[in-house]
Amino acid sequence: MRDDDERCNRASTWFEALRDRICQAFEAIEDEYAPDEAPMRFERRPWQREGGGGGIMALMHGRVFEKVGVNVSTVHGKFAPEFAKAIPGAAEDPSFWASGISLVAHMVNPHVPPAHMNTRHIVTTRRWFGGGADLNSIIPITEDTADFHLALQDACDPFDPERYARYKAWADDYFFIPHRGEARGEGGIFYDYLEDDFERDFAFTKSVGEAFLDVYPRIVRRRMHTPWTEADKQLQAVKRGRYVEFNLVYDRGTQFGLKTGGNPEAVLMSLPPSAAWP
Amino acid sequence: MRDDDERCNRASTWFEALRDRICQAFEAIEDEYAPDEAPMRFERRPWQREGGGGGIMALMHGRVFEKVGVNVSTVHGKFAPEFAKAIPGAAEDPSFWASGISLVAHMVNPHVPPAHMNTRHIVTTRRWFGGGADLNSIIPITEDTADFHLALQDACDPFDPERYARYKAWADDYFFIPHRGEARGEGGIFYDYLEDDFERDFAFTKSVGEAFLDVYPRIVRRRMHTPWTEADKQLQAVKRGRYVEFNLVYDRGTQFGLKTGGNPEAVLMSLPPSAAWP
Repeated sequence: MRDDDERCNRASTWFEALRDRICQAFEAIEDEYAPDEAPMRFERRPWQREGGGGGIMALMHGRVFEKVGVNVSTVHGKFAPEFAKAIPGAAEDPSFWASGISLVAHMVNPHVPPAHMNTRHIVTTRRWFGGGADLNSIIPITEDTADFHLALQDACDPFDPERYARYKAWADDYFFIPHRGEARGEGGIFYDYLEDDFERDFAFTKSVGEAFLDVYPRIVRRRMHTPWTEADKQLQAVKRGRYVEFNLVYDRGTQFGLKTGGNPEAVLMSLPPSAAWP
Repeated sequence: MRDDDERCNRASTWFEALRDRICQAFEAIEDEYAPDEAPMRFERRPWQREGGGGGIMALMHGRVFEKVGVNVSTVHGKFAPEFAKAIPGAAEDPSFWASGISLVAHMVNPHVPPAHMNTRHIVTTRRWFGGGADLNSIIPITEDTADFHLALQDACDPFDPERYARYKAWADDYFFIPHRGEARGEGGIFYDYLEDDFERDFAFTKSVGEAFLDVYPRIVRRRMHTPWTEADKQLQAVKRGRYVEFNLVYDRGTQFGLKTGGNPEAVLMSLPPSAAWP
């Protein structure tokens, strides 16, 4: 049990504060989109994990954000033996503590790119940060993809001029659907097992969160009024199916959540409101 | 390579013949449902597997069958080393030959239960049959569930009076979604690694196919005219989401297909035309 660990507390407090700011930013977009309508707001559902800890799912079904979930969970316990082997530092002692923020936004308008962002701090006999963010356009637009990547590069550069290239390549590798032989989207960054220096790694993780909070609302505002066709919606449904395939078959966080007895509603909050396999 | 093996040929020929009879039976239901409309027919798409063999997907989008796939594939090659360990008789020699029929029917009317049936013959240094069938109602109706199970019991009983109970229990265990803590549907039978006696095991596998071909069209005809509501359709979309979760996270055939470089369109043909995670 490491709940009382000061560094753990700082990490989980940061994830919660970032969640609050992101929710406010998304609600502001909803207000702006339909100023004369009843305001759309996140609904928060707390949940407890059998075995230790729990979290809060914040979920909104809006006019711009068709389904957006921002989940903060802080859990602890012991990994199952077969699972512990695969986790750094857990083979010796299966105790773990983990806290993270996980966000997935599925948008009404097929011209607004869906996005994902997740950062986490995990403690076993070792302790590290991990996370990532990526864009998953239905109809990719060069300007949006470029801005998204630029924001992430700006988050990386102060830490190491080669970091962005490395984490971008990791994202290209990670956000890939092998059985389809296709990328999940336009990529972004992915990093894991970052355990060089707690303060520096924590600062980097904050920097990724800030970058996302800055760039994604800009992209959403830019595209939320673009007219779409029925064919665009069809394309969106099929693309969402691919997203489901990636998350259920390959995603580490999903596997982690399902195998450690996480709340399935929270773990699978990332799944799109609808999907099609025509 | 065991393509020229007489027993292999008999198995794959049976799977193809069963496919033809099932497709005809389902097309006849479509004709009966809308006798004055343009007939709905299966479209067949052959595919080749890199590494050996291939198959034919038969797919129909009808007025009763919203999306029904009947896939026969006959593939051979060598298992990847990490995969071979998990397959009986493949650790010694990773060569395999496999043939099977796989059927999933997603129905327009939420009162018609979706169904799945799959039987296969697999050859490594050992050789066995496996398969199963199960019903996945949106709104379960006792009469349909009972008839489905009775047909499968009739298929089992001549072989061993305890077989049905054993294979039903296996299905209850297999067609279960651990992270949801809920059954995928009303169950049916599941069996695998049946290698007692080729002739007897093949006869049993045929018997399962015949039972399905007899009972499922009867259930479809009985319910296809039942009126449904928008709420029933919503329920159907959510239930289909659960089906997707099971198939992508747990289903053996899906894992086998994706990991052995099967055609993703054929492997994932089982996925519903649409699904929702509201």
